[in-house]
Order: sequence, then structure tokens, then C-alpha cells
Amino acid sequence: MTTPFPADVYATRLARARALTEEAGLDVIVVGPGPDLTYLAGVEGDTIERLTALVIPATGEPTVVVPRMELSKVRDTAVGSLGLAIADWVDGEDPYALVMAAMPAAPVRIGLSDALPALHVIPIADRLGVRPELATPVLREGRMIKDEAEIAELRRAGAAIDAVHRRVPALLRAGRTERDVAADIAAAIVAEGHRTVEFVIVASGPNGADPHHEVSDRVIQDGDVVVVDIGGAVPSGYNSDSTRTYAVGTPDPETARRIAVLVRAQQAAVDAVRPGVTAEQVDAAARDVLTAEGLGAAFLHRTGHGIGVTTHEEPYIAPGNALPLREGMAFSIEPGIYFPGEWGSRIEDIVVVTADGCENLNTVPHELTAAGA
Amino acid sequence: MTTPFPADVYATRLARARALTEEAGLDVIVVGPGPDLTYLAGVEGDTIERLTALVIPATGEPTVVVPRMELSKVRDTAVGSLGLAIADWVDGEDPYALVMAAMPAAPVRIGLSDALPALHVIPIADRLGVRPELATPVLREGRMIKDEAEIAELRRAGAAIDAVHRRVPALLRAGRTERDVAADIAAAIVAEGHRTVEFVIVASGPNGADPHHEVSDRVIQDGDVVVVDIGGAVPSGYNSDSTRTYAVGTPDPETARRIAVLVRAQQAAVDAVRPGVTAEQVDAAARDVLTAEGLGAAFLHRTGHGIGVTTHEEPYIAPGNALPLREGMAFSIEPGIYFPGEWGSRIEDIVVVTADGCENLNTVPHELTAAGA
Repeated sequence: MTTPFPADVYATRLARARALTEEAGLDVIVVGPGPDLTYLAGVEGDTIERLTALVIPATGEPTVVVPRMELSKVRDTAVGSLGLAIADWVDGEDPYALVMAAMPAAPVRIGLSDALPALHVIPIADRLGVRPELATPVLREGRMIKDEAEIAELRRAGAAIDAVHRRVPALLRAGRTERDVAADIAAAIVAEGHRTVEFVIVASGPNGADPHHEVSDRVIQDGDVVVVDIGGAVPSGYNSDSTRTYAVGTPDPETARRIAVLVRAQQAAVDAVRPGVTAEQVDAAARDVLTAEGLGAAFLHRTGHGIGVTTHEEPYIAPGNALPLREGMAFSIEPGIYFPGEWGSRIEDIVVVTADGCENLNTVPHELTAAGA
Repeated sequence: MTTPFPADVYATRLARARALTEEAGLDVIVVGPGPDLTYLAGVEGDTIERLTALVIPATGEPTVVVPRMELSKVRDTAVGSLGLAIADWVDGEDPYALVMAAMPAAPVRIGLSDALPALHVIPIADRLGVRPELATPVLREGRMIKDEAEIAELRRAGAAIDAVHRRVPALLRAGRTERDVAADIAAAIVAEGHRTVEFVIVASGPNGADPHHEVSDRVIQDGDVVVVDIGGAVPSGYNSDSTRTYAVGTPDPETARRIAVLVRAQQAAVDAVRPGVTAEQVDAAARDVLTAEGLGAAFLHRTGHGIGVTTHEEPYIAPGNALPLREGMAFSIEPGIYFPGEWGSRIEDIVVVTADGCENLNTVPHELTAAGA
């Protein structure tokens, strides 16, 4: 078996998804390739054009529809170890007929996984003659609340990325390009225990003002502030994601002052996390500190996102999200400030909600960190 | 500008998509991140949870809906150079309202790009109160027929992957693991001019019997037949994809005989390609040779798939696809034979349909190739 957890973990997840499907009043859910399928059955990969789908009726047993050429790979997951029903098909056959056959008769309410592409959503909706809905109420629930085994994997990922951040000051120096530094960081991400490099952002000087800048051929200058936002997946597929801001040489005093405010804002949000507090309250905790110091307009994005088998998932720590936090939720706390044409800064940790607060999975200091000049 | 082609190429593609939208009787199409958006506007990336969409009404001007934090990146594409209308949004705002505002009033028929995930398909359908359809008739047409500039990029990709295959005999030898060989091949893919490694399949001995085997820690044995199926994207984003079968040491004579039949089958399909012939006729050309030699049941998949800004796209060269080929279509010809528990073989070239036949973009010999024992 090539899944990171034993078969009974997946049996529990599938049973829970079935119960939640029934509870939500849905007749059936259809889960396509993507993180939901990885979570429920250990099936990885994301083939787009040939349909693979896990069909879970509210009453009855699930069926996996799969192209025959992927059969051996899918059998080597919880689908095989749990002996789930399989309906396979070859090129030229109609996979949607197999999806229909796996459903209860004349379903009225059908839920689809977020990642299922329109290419498959539309034919399924056309066959059924109904407008499908998102299976979010069923699928979000399980993935949002991490169990002990999942938290252990997130801890492992957090320790691995912390080890990479500890190496950054030695890699980052004036005269090197962002791209060269990023290549060394990517190698360190693998060397420190990740199986994949998911992203490496090295945003120096004015590039730091773009929250989604990745890397460029810009040569790092003495006096630059540099945002380093990095993450990867450990062998189980669980992800790390951590950001620190580095100073190459001596930063401008006003820049240093603003980053100190950001560090306070980030800590205020971490301190606000506990069961019952809402996602938007955590966002506001960071935002209020920045606003009080006149930096509210420089904070261009939400405070955070959930993390697990993907790097961006529920819960989103954002204005307007009234979701109350619960024990086992794992997400980033990553406020940032951005000054177009000048510089930017972001500080990010992953936290897990505990019974009375949170556990911070990233232990590298938050303060502006000196790197090689 | 960071797009591979000049702005007028994208202007032409967008104008064509608008005209085809009108011609198909659609009121509007919505194109999400993915290859269609890359093709139409040079926008790369595939953020899932925050909506980016190009809305193209049948009459009127297109609008790009984009998260503000991605704005600078999107402006640095044809969206910026063509001055397309932009509607940006921040976390907490409603991107679907912007999509509705970019549409003509009360649209009845709305087309969606294949890759748009259910996460966005469902809210758009709910706002409109109609069942959307796939924009395939609009989007397939442009991407299927490659222009001269695109064919030049596919040629560049073909030459790059051929250079990698020429290195394979020196890398593949008894005693090495598939994974070690694959790592060397991945490095060669980059060294020979690709910007990304899209996939590296090294399927030795019995692993070759699984068409989707990637790599494993299996140690390659003397006498193994090894399938090497590799591809990457050149800097413009256009892809290579080529498969050869290698012999480590001396293969069994019956194995060698069957692979010689496969080589004939592959060539028969290449020879069948010309404008007006259907996709299924090309598939049958390969299949018939294998069937006549008693190997039809060992051929588990379709003969090929289109290639361009993705490695799998229209046209699919498969049974049941009556699409007539046209000049400028580019696709793989890759029959394979698979003997579970024993071995497999596949031979794959990329061809482009010309006025009276096809151009084969891969020139490395097809025959079973001796590798280091």
C-alpha cells in the first residue's frame, strides 16, 4: 500500500463522508481527482481528460469509476485495501454511464467536489437534468478538522521548513539573483525532508511589493528587504508553508519600524486563535494592529488559509468568514504589508487550533532577520 | 511582456474566439485559468480558490476578472498589452458579481472552459439560473489548429526531446534503479532546452506492462525491456512528448518480434495521417496491424492525443472519434502493447498534419534500441 495512513483511517473518512452526505440531504456526491480524493481514498494525481471519480451515495456503497489504464495505480491505494467497488472503462466507452449506474435511482440533489472540472461537471449535469451543487458541506468538514496523525504530519512539515529558513541567511546575499537563491532554497527544501517543492518565492526590494511575485533575475542589492515564502510536501503529502522577511545589509529605520509593527500584527492574530473565535475575528486581530499604525491600506490580502493535503484550503482566515474555529483546524497566519515600487514584507506561521489556544508549528523567530550583505 | 508571442497573435485569437462564440449561438463564454486562458491571453498559472476569469461576450468587449493580488502578473500578459478591461476584486468581495456584470444582460446560453472547477461552475450557474454548457466548440477550434509560430515551437520541443532520447542508452543500464535513471533524464530534459520537466516514465521489465507506471526503486536487470516516455515544456510553454523502448542486454526473440510489429503499427498510423482522414481511422491503422498479428488485446489505450500548451488536448486519436484531420493539427501517435507481469512497449512521435500528409517532429529511430547492459 502506498497511502500514508492505514486503511482504517480511510474507512473512517469514507464512512463520515457518507453520513455527512445523508445529513446534508444530498442523494449522492461525486468526488473527482484532487485533494478530496486524496483525503478520502489516498488516490493522488489529477488526470483531467479521462474521468476518475469516487461516487458516494447517501445510502449504499461507494463506487470508483476509473480508466482501465489507471486501474493498477488506483488499486494500490485505499480503493484496493478496502475492496471498494470499481467500474473501469477504456477509451471509446462512456464513463458518465458508469457514474449514473453508481448513483441511487433518479437523484435530485447531487454534490460535486470543488476540483471537478467543467469538462466532467457539464456532462454529469446534462445526464441528470438537474443543477448540481457543491459537496462543500460534506467534504470541507472532514478535511478541515485534522486528526492526530495529520497534525503529526503537519508538525513534521513545519520542522522541515523551519530548517530551511535557518539556512536562508547564508544563501541570501547582495550580488546573487533571486533565481540563484531560489534554486539553493529548493534544493534545501528537498534536503530537509520534503518530497516536493511546492513554491519558492524570493521577492527582493521592489519585487516584495507584489504579494504573488515568485522569482526573477533581479540581482539582490545591499539594503534590500527580501520576502522568502516557501513550502513543500513531506512524503505523506502534507504541506509546509512559512514566510520570513530578511534584511540584506542595514534596512532603512522606517522600514524596520513598519516590519516591527507587522510582527506585532502577526502575533496578535496568533494570540487570538482559540475554539469559538471566528475566522474573521482572527483576520481582524492582525488588521486592527496594522490599521492603528496607519498600515491598514498596505495589507492587500486575507490573513490566512487552511493547509493539509493542499497548501490552500478551508478554513480561510478572511474578512466576512464567520466560521467559528474548532480544535484540529490548521491554517496560516500571514499578514503582509506592500508598498508598490518600494518593498514589502510578510510573516507567516502555520498554527493548529488546540483546546484552549493554538500550537504554532513554526518556531523560527519572526523579526526581520539579517542575511549576508 | 512575458508572453511567448507578440500581442497581435493574442488579438487574433481573442477575435476568433468571440466570432466562434457568436457562431456557436452562445451568448458568452467564461474562460478560467488553464490552457485555454494561456492560449487566448498568455495568462499562466492555475489558482483554484480565487477566481480569475476571462469573460468573452458574443457581442462586445472581453473583461478579465482577477484578484487584485494577481493584477500585476496578469497586466504583464496580453491582457495588459491589449488593454483589455479588468475587473479586480479583493478577499471578502464577490467575484461572481463581476462575472455577471461583464456578461450581456440575461444570457441564456453560456459556455465554460473545460478546466473551470466546480467551485466556480456551480456559483456561476446558480447566479444565472441556467445550466451552462462546455465552450468546447469555441475553444477547441483555435487550440487544435496550430499556426506557423506554434508549429515552430513544437519543432523546437521535438528536437529537444530527441536530444534527450539520444542520451538515454548511456544512462540506462543493469544495476541502476528506475528512479536514478529518471533523475538523470530529468536533468537532461532541462539541459536540452526545456524550462520544465513534465513527466519522466522509466518502466522496466514487468513495470512496462502498466501504461501509466512512472518510476520505482526497481533495479534494472540484464535482459529487461524498458519503456522511456518523457516530455517537458520549452520556454514558450509548448510541449514535447516522445517514447522509445530500450533493451538492456539481449531481449527474448519473441519479445523482439512483437516490438517489431509495434514499430510497424506505429508507422502505419503515421502514414495514415493526412487532411480529411478521421482521428479514428488513424487509430485503426495502428490497431489493425496489431490485431492482424494477434496483439490487438494487448493495446490498452487510444493511439494518441493532441499537444500544444498542454500535453493532452484535442484532437484525441481514438476509436469513435470521427473528427476529420485538418492541416495544422498536432498530436501523438503512440500505440503500445502490454503483457501484465511480463513487459510492455510503446513507441511515440508527435506529428503535425500538412497539406498532403504529416511532418514527424521526432527523428530518433523507432526500433528497439540497445542500452548499456
